[in-house]
Amino acid sequence: MQNILALFLSKGTLVDCRRKQFLIEQGAVCDKVYYVQEGVTRHFVITQEGQEKTIRISKENDFFYTSIVSYYRNEPSYIYCQCLTDCRLIFWERNQLEGLFTEYPDLGEFRNQQHINFILEKHKKEISLLTRNATERFNDFCLDNGALFNRIPHHIIASYLDVTPETLSRLRSGKS
Amino acid sequence: MQNILALFLSKGTLVDCRRKQFLIEQGAVCDKVYYVQEGVTRHFVITQEGQEKTIRISKENDFFYTSIVSYYRNEPSYIYCQCLTDCRLIFWERNQLEGLFTEYPDLGEFRNQQHINFILEKHKKEISLLTRNATERFNDFCLDNGALFNRIPHHIIASYLDVTPETLSRLRSGKS
Repeated sequence: MQNILALFLSKGTLVDCRRKQFLIEQGAVCDKVYYVQEGVTRHFVITQEGQEKTIRISKENDFFYTSIVSYYRNEPSYIYCQCLTDCRLIFWERNQLEGLFTEYPDLGEFRNQQHINFILEKHKKEISLLTRNATERFNDFCLDNGALFNRIPHHIIASYLDVTPETLSRLRSGKS
Repeated sequence: MQNILALFLSKGTLVDCRRKQFLIEQGAVCDKVYYVQEGVTRHFVITQEGQEKTIRISKENDFFYTSIVSYYRNEPSYIYCQCLTDCRLIFWERNQLEGLFTEYPDLGEFRNQQHINFILEKHKKEISLLTRNATERFNDFCLDNGALFNRIPHHIIASYLDVTPETLSRLRSGKS
């Protein structure tokens, strides 16, 4: 799988983006897949109450569509995708991707595995929000993402964990 | 795609299940994929508060893993899956599936498309809960699933839509 990853990365285009730069805004159509070489990004929506709600945080070695629904349905995105730090990203455009998957069947299999990983991530998050309390969700998050507290605003992590910034602050105090 | 679907269905095993029968309970490991020929099923979890929370409702022509996380991670399921009506289902076991995908590459592509459909469904539901109010979610649900009100308990639809049974009753009155 390492060789496949290296092949796939070698076919992409490197781009440097600035903190707060948008990779997609609501209403645009997603036509790109990104890989995070360095940096942190987030996906968010605007809630019924007009608040930003972060639904995904991506860091080094993560892949993401700026909006996967928009990409596959070819319809305007509901989602915003934004850099939370200066980022070095690799991207592939839709037309290029389809050609690559035809040319290299192993890359198609790699993409399918990424889709399965994405399903598992989304499903685990949905179940976690229903079955685990704030402390448990915080501890789960820290297992893989503790270093993010030094890199991105904490209110964004609070939004992602579905807790208030005050609760997150309390959880962090209890942790240290 | 119709031929592929027919091929896939012909390789499965038909089973009749009774209303309220569990297809998986928490703690078991998922090793099956199902297709609904006739009937309605649901996936649910037990929340932190000890309540049943329905996270998916499947009806005729839907595919589902009893627990997709359990299937791919080969770990005990958090999720319950239960028949809401008497059901006629078709199922495939894990070992059989892997053989089929090797034997018929088109079936592998069919599975990948099902995964993408599942991602889109999950993603749209996540975004809908954040960005659309109860009335909008109810109307969205009725577009494809209005007939379910005559087939399954309404409190289960309320749970799925993340509204109280009372709110759902009010929404239905306003609709008719």
